[in-house]
Amino acid sequence: MKRIYMGKTKDVYALEDGNYLLKFKDDVTGEDGKFDPGANTVGLSIEGAGMAGLKLTKYFFEVLKAKDIPTHYIDASIEETSMKVRPASVFGNGLEVICRYRAVGSFLRRYGQYAVEGQPLEAFVEVTLKDDTRQDPPITEDALDMLGILSSKEYKELKELTKRIGNIVKEELAAKEIELYDIKFEFGRGKETGEIILIDEISGGNMRAYKDGRYIEPLELQRLVLGE
Amino acid sequence: MKRIYMGKTKDVYALEDGNYLLKFKDDVTGEDGKFDPGANTVGLSIEGAGMAGLKLTKYFFEVLKAKDIPTHYIDASIEETSMKVRPASVFGNGLEVICRYRAVGSFLRRYGQYAVEGQPLEAFVEVTLKDDTRQDPPITEDALDMLGILSSKEYKELKELTKRIGNIVKEELAAKEIELYDIKFEFGRGKETGEIILIDEISGGNMRAYKDGRYIEPLELQRLVLGE
Repeated sequence: MKRIYMGKTKDVYALEDGNYLLKFKDDVTGEDGKFDPGANTVGLSIEGAGMAGLKLTKYFFEVLKAKDIPTHYIDASIEETSMKVRPASVFGNGLEVICRYRAVGSFLRRYGQYAVEGQPLEAFVEVTLKDDTRQDPPITEDALDMLGILSSKEYKELKELTKRIGNIVKEELAAKEIELYDIKFEFGRGKETGEIILIDEISGGNMRAYKDGRYIEPLELQRLVLGE
Repeated sequence: MKRIYMGKTKDVYALEDGNYLLKFKDDVTGEDGKFDPGANTVGLSIEGAGMAGLKLTKYFFEVLKAKDIPTHYIDASIEETSMKVRPASVFGNGLEVICRYRAVGSFLRRYGQYAVEGQPLEAFVEVTLKDDTRQDPPITEDALDMLGILSSKEYKELKELTKRIGNIVKEELAAKEIELYDIKFEFGRGKETGEIILIDEISGGNMRAYKDGRYIEPLELQRLVLGE
Protein backbone atom coordinates (compact mmCIF):
# COMPACT_ATOMS: atom_id res chain seq x y z
CA MET A 1 0.00 0.00 0.00
CA LYS A 2 1.67 3.16 -1.21
CA ARG A 3 0.88 6.68 -0.03
CA ILE A 4 0.43 8.78 -3.14
CA TYR A 5 -0.87 12.05 -1.72
CA MET A 6 -0.87 13.94 1.57
CA GLY A 7 -3.87 16.24 1.81
CA LYS A 8 -4.89 18.85 4.36
CA THR A 9 -7.30 16.53 6.16
CA LYS A 10 -6.72 13.14 4.50
CA ASP A 11 -3.90 11.04 3.03
CA VAL A 12 -4.45 8.89 -0.06
CA TYR A 13 -3.02 5.39 -0.59
CA ALA A 14 -3.08 3.33 -3.79
CA LEU A 15 -4.41 -0.22 -3.30
CA GLU A 16 -3.27 -3.20 -5.35
CA ASP A 17 -6.78 -3.81 -6.72
CA GLY A 18 -6.77 -0.41 -8.44
CA ASN A 19 -8.92 1.28 -5.79
CA TYR A 20 -7.75 3.87 -3.26
CA LEU A 21 -7.75 4.19 0.49
CA LEU A 22 -8.46 7.56 2.13
CA LYS A 23 -7.00 7.83 5.59
CA PHE A 24 -8.79 10.49 7.65
CA LYS A 25 -6.59 12.69 9.85
CA ASP A 26 -7.34 14.84 12.88
CA ASP A 27 -6.26 18.02 11.05
CA VAL A 28 -9.04 20.44 10.14
CA THR A 29 -9.05 23.53 7.95
CA GLY A 30 -9.09 26.90 9.60
CA GLU A 31 -7.05 29.94 10.46
CA ASP A 32 -5.34 31.09 13.65
CA GLY A 33 -6.39 27.99 15.53
CA LYS A 34 -10.07 28.46 14.68
CA PHE A 35 -12.03 25.95 12.59
CA ASP A 36 -13.42 27.29 9.28
CA PRO A 37 -14.82 24.90 6.64
CA GLY A 38 -14.12 27.52 3.96
CA ALA A 39 -10.45 27.96 4.84
CA ASN A 40 -7.54 26.77 2.72
CA THR A 41 -5.06 26.10 5.47
CA VAL A 42 -4.86 23.53 8.24
CA GLY A 43 -5.82 25.62 11.23
CA LEU A 44 -5.61 23.11 14.04
CA SER A 45 -5.72 19.46 14.99
CA ILE A 46 -8.75 18.19 16.93
CA GLU A 47 -8.48 14.77 18.57
CA GLY A 48 -11.12 12.52 17.08
CA ALA A 49 -11.87 14.82 14.12
CA GLY A 50 -10.72 12.20 11.58
CA MET A 51 -12.86 9.48 13.15
CA ALA A 52 -15.91 11.76 13.42
CA GLY A 53 -15.45 12.87 9.78
CA LEU A 54 -15.23 9.31 8.58
CA LYS A 55 -18.29 8.18 10.57
CA LEU A 56 -20.43 10.93 9.07
CA THR A 57 -18.98 10.37 5.60
CA LYS A 58 -19.73 6.64 5.79
CA TYR A 59 -23.25 7.42 6.95
CA PHE A 60 -24.02 9.94 4.20
CA PHE A 61 -22.35 7.96 1.39
CA GLU A 62 -24.43 4.92 2.36
CA VAL A 63 -27.59 7.03 2.31
CA LEU A 64 -26.61 8.23 -1.19
CA LYS A 65 -25.85 4.67 -2.30
CA ALA A 66 -29.34 3.58 -1.24
CA LYS A 67 -30.70 6.37 -3.44
CA ASP A 68 -28.57 5.31 -6.43
CA ILE A 69 -26.51 8.48 -6.47
CA PRO A 70 -23.12 7.81 -8.04
CA THR A 71 -20.18 8.27 -5.64
CA HIS A 72 -16.65 6.91 -5.27
CA TYR A 73 -17.54 5.13 -2.02
CA ILE A 74 -16.90 1.37 -1.68
CA ASP A 75 -16.69 0.80 2.09
CA ALA A 76 -15.13 2.18 5.25
CA SER A 77 -13.25 0.88 8.28
CA ILE A 78 -13.98 2.99 11.34
CA GLU A 79 -11.26 1.18 13.34
CA GLU A 80 -8.63 2.09 10.76
CA THR A 81 -10.09 5.58 10.11
CA SER A 82 -10.06 4.80 6.42
CA MET A 83 -12.42 4.60 3.48
CA LYS A 84 -12.01 2.57 0.29
CA VAL A 85 -12.98 4.38 -2.89
CA ARG A 86 -13.15 3.85 -6.64
CA PRO A 87 -10.62 5.66 -8.83
CA ALA A 88 -11.77 8.98 -10.26
CA SER A 89 -10.12 11.89 -11.97
CA VAL A 90 -10.93 15.42 -10.87
CA PHE A 91 -11.98 18.22 -13.23
CA GLY A 92 -8.90 20.27 -14.09
CA ASN A 93 -6.86 20.49 -10.89
CA GLY A 94 -10.00 20.09 -8.81
CA LEU A 95 -13.18 22.06 -8.20
CA GLU A 96 -15.16 22.84 -5.08
CA VAL A 97 -18.89 22.84 -5.59
CA ILE A 98 -20.86 24.69 -2.95
CA CYS A 99 -24.56 24.32 -2.29
CA ARG A 100 -25.99 27.18 -0.25
CA TYR A 101 -29.20 27.33 1.79
CA ARG A 102 -28.43 30.50 3.72
CA ALA A 103 -26.22 33.48 2.89
CA VAL A 104 -23.08 33.22 5.00
CA GLY A 105 -19.31 32.96 4.46
CA SER A 106 -17.77 33.82 1.09
CA PHE A 107 -21.19 34.32 -0.53
CA LEU A 108 -21.90 37.17 1.85
CA ARG A 109 -18.36 38.55 1.47
CA ARG A 110 -18.91 38.75 -2.29
CA TYR A 111 -22.59 39.66 -2.55
CA GLY A 112 -23.25 41.48 0.71
CA GLN A 113 -24.50 44.47 -1.30
CA TYR A 114 -27.51 42.38 -2.36
CA ALA A 115 -27.98 39.85 0.44
CA VAL A 116 -28.33 39.95 4.20
CA GLU A 117 -26.68 37.48 6.55
CA GLY A 118 -28.69 34.29 6.92
CA GLN A 119 -31.02 35.01 4.00
CA PRO A 120 -32.46 31.76 2.48
CA LEU A 121 -30.84 30.77 -0.82
CA GLU A 122 -32.71 27.59 -1.89
CA ALA A 123 -29.90 25.23 -2.89
CA PHE A 124 -27.88 27.85 -4.72
CA VAL A 125 -24.88 26.25 -6.45
CA GLU A 126 -21.48 27.90 -6.94
CA VAL A 127 -18.22 26.49 -8.25
CA THR A 128 -14.73 27.58 -7.20
CA LEU A 129 -11.34 26.41 -8.42
CA LYS A 130 -9.14 24.57 -5.94
CA ASP A 131 -6.22 26.98 -6.08
CA ASP A 132 -4.72 27.97 -2.74
CA THR A 133 -2.40 30.58 -4.21
CA ARG A 134 -5.34 32.35 -5.87
CA GLN A 135 -7.74 31.93 -2.91
CA ASP A 136 -10.05 29.43 -4.65
CA PRO A 137 -11.56 31.89 -7.16
CA PRO A 138 -15.22 31.49 -8.16
CA ILE A 139 -15.72 30.45 -11.78
CA THR A 140 -18.65 30.56 -14.19
CA GLU A 141 -20.11 27.87 -16.43
CA ASP A 142 -18.74 29.75 -19.46
CA ALA A 143 -15.21 29.97 -18.04
CA LEU A 144 -15.18 26.29 -17.03
CA ASP A 145 -16.23 25.36 -20.54
CA MET A 146 -13.79 27.71 -22.28
CA LEU A 147 -10.83 26.60 -20.15
CA GLY A 148 -11.61 22.97 -20.91
CA ILE A 149 -12.30 22.09 -17.28
CA LEU A 150 -15.95 21.09 -17.63
CA SER A 151 -18.29 21.31 -20.60
CA SER A 152 -21.54 23.27 -20.30
CA LYS A 153 -23.43 19.97 -20.50
CA GLU A 154 -21.35 18.53 -17.65
CA TYR A 155 -21.80 21.75 -15.66
CA LYS A 156 -25.58 21.40 -15.79
CA GLU A 157 -25.31 17.76 -14.73
CA LEU A 158 -22.95 18.71 -11.89
CA LYS A 159 -25.31 21.45 -10.73
CA GLU A 160 -28.34 19.16 -10.63
CA LEU A 161 -26.38 16.41 -8.86
CA THR A 162 -25.13 18.95 -6.31
CA LYS A 163 -28.67 20.13 -5.56
CA ARG A 164 -29.91 16.55 -5.24
CA ILE A 165 -27.14 15.56 -2.83
CA GLY A 166 -27.32 18.83 -0.91
CA ASN A 167 -31.05 18.37 -0.44
CA ILE A 168 -30.56 14.80 0.82
CA VAL A 169 -27.99 15.94 3.39
CA LYS A 170 -30.27 18.84 4.35
CA GLU A 171 -33.21 16.48 4.94
CA GLU A 172 -31.08 14.04 6.93
CA LEU A 173 -29.96 16.90 9.20
CA ALA A 174 -33.47 18.36 9.42
CA ALA A 175 -34.65 15.01 10.84
CA LYS A 176 -32.33 15.74 13.79
CA GLU A 177 -33.56 19.35 13.96
CA ILE A 178 -30.28 20.59 12.50
CA GLU A 179 -30.31 23.19 9.75
CA LEU A 180 -27.83 23.07 6.87
CA TYR A 181 -26.56 26.53 5.86
CA ASP A 182 -24.07 25.43 3.20
CA ILE A 183 -22.06 22.42 2.11
CA LYS A 184 -19.03 21.93 -0.11
CA PHE A 185 -18.64 18.94 -2.42
CA GLU A 186 -16.00 17.58 -4.74
CA PHE A 187 -16.78 15.65 -7.88
CA GLY A 188 -14.78 13.63 -10.35
CA ARG A 189 -15.15 11.39 -13.38
CA GLY A 190 -15.33 7.71 -12.49
CA LYS A 191 -12.40 5.88 -14.11
CA GLU A 192 -14.36 3.00 -15.60
CA THR A 193 -17.56 4.79 -16.58
CA GLY A 194 -16.53 8.41 -17.10
CA GLU A 195 -19.71 9.46 -15.30
CA ILE A 196 -19.72 12.35 -12.82
CA ILE A 197 -19.46 10.97 -9.30
CA LEU A 198 -19.28 12.51 -5.84
CA ILE A 199 -15.80 12.08 -4.34
CA ASP A 200 -14.02 13.21 -1.15
CA GLU A 201 -16.10 13.26 2.05
CA ILE A 202 -19.33 14.55 3.58
CA SER A 203 -18.66 15.63 7.14
CA GLY A 204 -18.75 18.51 9.56
CA GLY A 205 -15.55 19.77 7.98
CA ASN A 206 -17.35 20.46 4.70
CA MET A 207 -20.51 22.12 5.88
CA ARG A 208 -21.99 24.75 8.14
CA ALA A 209 -24.76 23.27 10.25
CA TYR A 210 -26.79 25.07 12.92
CA LYS A 211 -29.12 23.98 15.70
CA ASP A 212 -31.40 26.49 17.44
CA GLY A 213 -29.41 29.26 15.74
CA ARG A 214 -26.09 27.98 17.10
CA TYR A 215 -23.27 26.70 14.87
CA ILE A 216 -22.49 23.00 15.40
CA GLU A 217 -18.80 22.04 15.52
CA PRO A 218 -17.77 18.97 13.44
CA LEU A 219 -17.43 16.55 16.39
CA GLU A 220 -20.74 17.60 17.91
CA LEU A 221 -22.40 17.26 14.51
CA GLN A 222 -21.31 13.63 14.30
CA ARG A 223 -22.72 12.93 17.78
CA LEU A 224 -26.01 14.70 17.02
CA VAL A 225 -26.52 12.99 13.67
CA LEU A 226 -25.40 9.50 14.64
CA GLY A 227 -26.49 9.64 18.28
CA GLU A 228 -23.28 8.22 19.67
CA MET B 1 -28.78 72.08 -15.03
CA LYS B 2 -28.25 70.20 -11.81
CA ARG B 3 -25.30 67.96 -10.97
CA ILE B 4 -26.75 64.73 -9.61
CA TYR B 5 -23.68 62.51 -9.39
CA MET B 6 -19.91 62.86 -9.19
CA GLY B 7 -18.18 59.80 -10.62
CA LYS B 8 -14.55 58.76 -10.74
CA THR B 9 -14.05 59.92 -14.32
CA LYS B 10 -17.33 61.73 -15.14
CA ASP B 11 -19.95 63.94 -13.49
CA VAL B 12 -23.63 63.59 -14.34
CA TYR B 13 -26.09 66.47 -14.75
CA ALA B 14 -29.88 66.28 -15.12
CA LEU B 15 -31.25 68.22 -18.10
CA GLU B 16 -34.67 69.85 -18.18
CA ASP B 17 -35.82 67.73 -21.12
CA GLY B 18 -35.43 64.53 -19.04
CA ASN B 19 -32.11 63.55 -20.58
CA TYR B 20 -28.71 63.67 -18.88
CA LEU B 21 -25.38 65.30 -19.55
CA LEU B 22 -22.14 63.44 -18.86
CA LYS B 23 -19.21 65.75 -18.26
CA PHE B 24 -15.90 63.99 -18.89
CA LYS B 25 -13.08 64.77 -16.44
CA ASP B 26 -9.31 64.39 -16.67
CA ASP B 27 -9.25 61.90 -13.78
CA VAL B 28 -8.46 58.31 -14.72
CA THR B 29 -8.63 55.10 -12.70
CA GLY B 30 -5.41 53.60 -11.44
CA GLU B 31 -3.27 53.02 -8.42
CA ASP B 32 -0.11 54.73 -7.13
CA GLY B 33 -0.11 57.22 -9.98
CA LYS B 34 -0.23 54.51 -12.63
CA PHE B 35 -3.16 54.14 -15.04
CA ASP B 36 -5.09 50.84 -14.81
CA PRO B 37 -8.45 50.44 -16.58
CA GLY B 38 -9.36 47.69 -14.10
CA ALA B 39 -8.72 49.78 -10.98
CA ASN B 40 -11.42 51.10 -8.67
CA THR B 41 -9.70 54.24 -7.52
CA VAL B 42 -8.77 57.48 -9.25
CA GLY B 43 -5.06 57.02 -9.70
CA LEU B 44 -4.07 60.24 -11.39
CA SER B 45 -5.22 63.13 -13.50
CA ILE B 46 -4.00 63.34 -17.10
CA GLU B 47 -4.47 66.65 -18.94
CA GLY B 48 -6.68 66.04 -21.94
CA ALA B 49 -7.86 62.60 -20.75
CA GLY B 50 -11.51 63.75 -20.54
CA MET B 51 -11.45 65.24 -24.04
CA ALA B 52 -9.72 62.17 -25.51
CA GLY B 53 -12.20 59.87 -23.78
CA LEU B 54 -15.15 61.82 -25.09
CA LYS B 55 -13.80 61.94 -28.66
CA LEU B 56 -13.38 58.16 -28.75
CA THR B 57 -16.72 57.61 -27.05
CA LYS B 58 -18.49 59.85 -29.58
CA TYR B 59 -16.77 58.01 -32.41
CA PHE B 60 -17.66 54.52 -31.18
CA PHE B 61 -21.23 55.36 -30.14
CA GLU B 62 -21.86 56.80 -33.60
CA VAL B 63 -20.47 53.63 -35.18
CA LEU B 64 -22.86 51.61 -33.00
CA LYS B 65 -25.78 53.90 -33.89
CA ALA B 66 -25.13 53.29 -37.58
CA LYS B 67 -25.36 49.57 -36.86
CA ASP B 68 -28.63 49.96 -34.93
CA ILE B 69 -27.16 48.87 -31.62
CA PRO B 70 -29.15 50.38 -28.74
CA THR B 71 -27.17 52.83 -26.59
CA HIS B 72 -27.93 55.83 -24.38
CA TYR B 73 -26.06 58.18 -26.75
CA ILE B 74 -27.84 61.25 -28.16
CA ASP B 75 -25.02 63.62 -29.09
CA ALA B 76 -21.77 65.08 -27.83
CA SER B 77 -20.11 68.46 -27.56
CA ILE B 78 -16.35 68.16 -27.81
CA GLU B 79 -15.90 71.85 -26.87
CA GLU B 80 -17.81 71.35 -23.63
CA THR B 81 -16.34 67.87 -22.97
CA SER B 82 -19.85 66.60 -22.53
CA MET B 83 -22.22 64.00 -23.93
CA LYS B 84 -26.01 64.04 -23.90
CA VAL B 85 -27.63 60.69 -23.09
CA ARG B 86 -31.04 59.10 -22.67
CA PRO B 87 -32.14 58.14 -19.16
CA ALA B 88 -31.45 54.55 -18.16
CA SER B 89 -31.50 52.59 -14.94
CA VAL B 90 -28.62 50.29 -14.12
CA PHE B 91 -28.99 46.65 -13.07
CA GLY B 92 -28.90 46.46 -9.28
CA ASN B 93 -26.29 48.99 -8.18
CA GLY B 94 -24.47 48.62 -11.45
CA LEU B 95 -22.60 45.89 -13.29
CA GLU B 96 -19.38 45.83 -15.25
CA VAL B 97 -19.45 43.59 -18.27
CA ILE B 98 -16.05 42.57 -19.60
CA CYS B 99 -15.36 41.17 -23.03
CA ARG B 100 -11.97 39.47 -23.27
CA TYR B 101 -9.89 38.67 -26.33
CA ARG B 102 -6.64 37.88 -24.55
CA ALA B 103 -5.94 36.60 -21.03
CA VAL B 104 -4.61 39.53 -18.99
CA GLY B 105 -5.55 41.46 -15.84
CA SER B 106 -8.06 40.03 -13.37
CA PHE B 107 -8.83 37.05 -15.62
CA LEU B 108 -5.24 35.91 -15.32
CA ARG B 109 -5.15 36.69 -11.60
CA ARG B 110 -8.14 34.38 -11.09
CA TYR B 111 -7.52 31.65 -13.67
CA GLY B 112 -3.75 31.66 -14.07
CA GLN B 113 -3.72 27.96 -13.17
CA TYR B 114 -5.44 27.25 -16.50
CA ALA B 115 -4.42 30.11 -18.79
CA VAL B 116 -1.17 31.71 -19.87
CA GLU B 117 -0.68 35.45 -20.24
CA GLY B 118 -1.89 36.73 -23.59
CA GLN B 119 -3.73 33.54 -24.54
CA PRO B 120 -6.60 34.23 -27.01
CA LEU B 121 -10.08 34.13 -25.42
CA GLU B 122 -12.50 34.76 -28.33
CA ALA B 123 -14.87 37.40 -26.90
CA PHE B 124 -15.19 35.77 -23.52
CA VAL B 125 -17.78 37.62 -21.40
CA GLU B 126 -17.63 38.07 -17.62
CA VAL B 127 -19.78 40.13 -15.29
CA THR B 128 -18.66 41.78 -12.06
CA LEU B 129 -20.61 43.79 -9.53
CA LYS B 130 -19.74 47.46 -9.16
CA ASP B 131 -18.84 47.31 -5.47
CA ASP B 132 -15.65 49.09 -4.48
CA THR B 133 -15.69 47.83 -0.91
CA ARG B 134 -15.86 44.22 -2.12
CA GLN B 135 -13.36 44.68 -5.00
CA ASP B 136 -15.96 44.28 -7.79
CA PRO B 137 -16.62 40.56 -7.28
CA PRO B 138 -17.32 38.37 -10.32
CA ILE B 139 -20.86 37.02 -10.44
CA THR B 140 -22.55 34.17 -12.30
CA GLU B 141 -25.73 34.11 -14.36
CA ASP B 142 -27.41 32.07 -11.61
CA ALA B 143 -26.42 34.50 -8.85
CA LEU B 144 -27.54 37.53 -10.89
CA ASP B 145 -30.89 35.86 -11.45
CA MET B 146 -31.31 34.70 -7.85
CA LEU B 147 -30.41 38.10 -6.38
CA GLY B 148 -32.93 39.79 -8.68
CA ILE B 149 -30.29 41.83 -10.51
CA LEU B 150 -30.76 40.37 -14.00
CA SER B 151 -32.92 37.49 -15.19
CA SER B 152 -31.31 34.55 -17.01
CA LYS B 153 -33.05 35.70 -20.18
CA GLU B 154 -31.64 39.23 -19.79
CA TYR B 155 -28.20 37.78 -19.00
CA LYS B 156 -28.15 35.92 -22.32
CA GLU B 157 -29.23 39.07 -24.14
CA LEU B 158 -26.56 41.10 -22.32
CA LYS B 159 -23.90 38.55 -23.19
CA GLU B 160 -24.76 38.53 -26.89
CA LEU B 161 -24.93 42.33 -27.02
CA THR B 162 -21.55 42.54 -25.28
CA LYS B 163 -19.95 40.21 -27.84
CA ARG B 164 -21.48 42.14 -30.73
CA ILE B 165 -20.26 45.50 -29.42
CA GLY B 166 -16.87 44.11 -28.39
CA ASN B 167 -16.38 42.67 -31.85
CA ILE B 168 -17.28 46.00 -33.49
CA VAL B 169 -14.75 47.88 -31.34
CA LYS B 170 -12.18 45.16 -32.03
CA GLU B 171 -12.68 45.48 -35.79
CA GLU B 172 -12.51 49.29 -35.66
CA LEU B 173 -9.19 49.05 -33.83
CA ALA B 174 -7.88 46.29 -36.10
CA ALA B 175 -8.39 48.64 -39.06
CA LYS B 176 -5.74 50.85 -37.41
CA GLU B 177 -3.54 47.83 -36.68
CA ILE B 178 -4.40 47.99 -32.99
CA GLU B 179 -5.32 44.85 -31.11
CA LEU B 180 -8.03 44.83 -28.45
CA TYR B 181 -7.14 42.65 -25.43
CA ASP B 182 -10.20 43.40 -23.30
CA ILE B 183 -12.92 46.00 -22.86
CA LYS B 184 -15.32 46.86 -20.07
CA PHE B 185 -18.90 47.96 -20.71
CA GLU B 186 -21.83 49.15 -18.65
CA PHE B 187 -25.42 48.49 -19.56
CA GLY B 188 -28.76 49.71 -18.34
CA ARG B 189 -32.48 49.55 -19.08
CA GLY B 190 -33.67 52.40 -21.27
CA LYS B 191 -36.28 54.42 -19.38
CA GLU B 192 -38.90 54.60 -22.14
CA THR B 193 -38.48 51.18 -23.71
CA GLY B 194 -37.07 48.99 -20.93
CA GLU B 195 -34.68 47.46 -23.47
CA ILE B 196 -31.06 46.72 -22.57
CA ILE B 197 -28.87 49.55 -23.83
CA LEU B 198 -25.16 50.31 -23.67
CA ILE B 199 -24.45 53.22 -21.32
CA ASP B 200 -21.34 54.99 -19.96
CA GLU B 201 -18.44 55.41 -22.40
CA ILE B 202 -16.15 53.57 -24.82
CA SER B 203 -12.65 54.96 -24.50
CA GLY B 204 -9.07 54.12 -23.69
CA GLY B 205 -10.02 54.21 -20.02
CA ASN B 206 -12.23 51.15 -20.46
CA MET B 207 -10.06 48.90 -22.56
CA ARG B 208 -6.62 47.43 -22.99
CA ALA B 209 -5.37 48.02 -26.53
CA TYR B 210 -1.98 47.00 -27.94
CA LYS B 211 -0.02 47.90 -31.06
CA ASP B 212 2.99 45.85 -32.12
CA GLY B 213 2.88 44.15 -28.70
CA ARG B 214 3.02 47.49 -26.85
CA TYR B 215 0.21 48.77 -24.61
CA ILE B 216 -1.41 51.96 -25.91
CA GLU B 217 -2.18 54.65 -23.31
CA PRO B 218 -5.67 56.28 -23.53
CA LEU B 219 -4.51 59.56 -25.10
CA GLU B 220 -2.36 57.82 -27.68
CA LEU B 221 -5.25 55.49 -28.49
CA GLN B 222 -7.47 58.44 -29.33
CA ARG B 223 -4.78 59.91 -31.65
CA LEU B 224 -4.16 56.56 -33.34
CA VAL B 225 -7.85 55.79 -33.87
CA LEU B 226 -9.01 59.25 -34.89
CA GLY B 227 -5.76 60.37 -36.56
CA GLU B 228 -5.69 63.76 -34.86
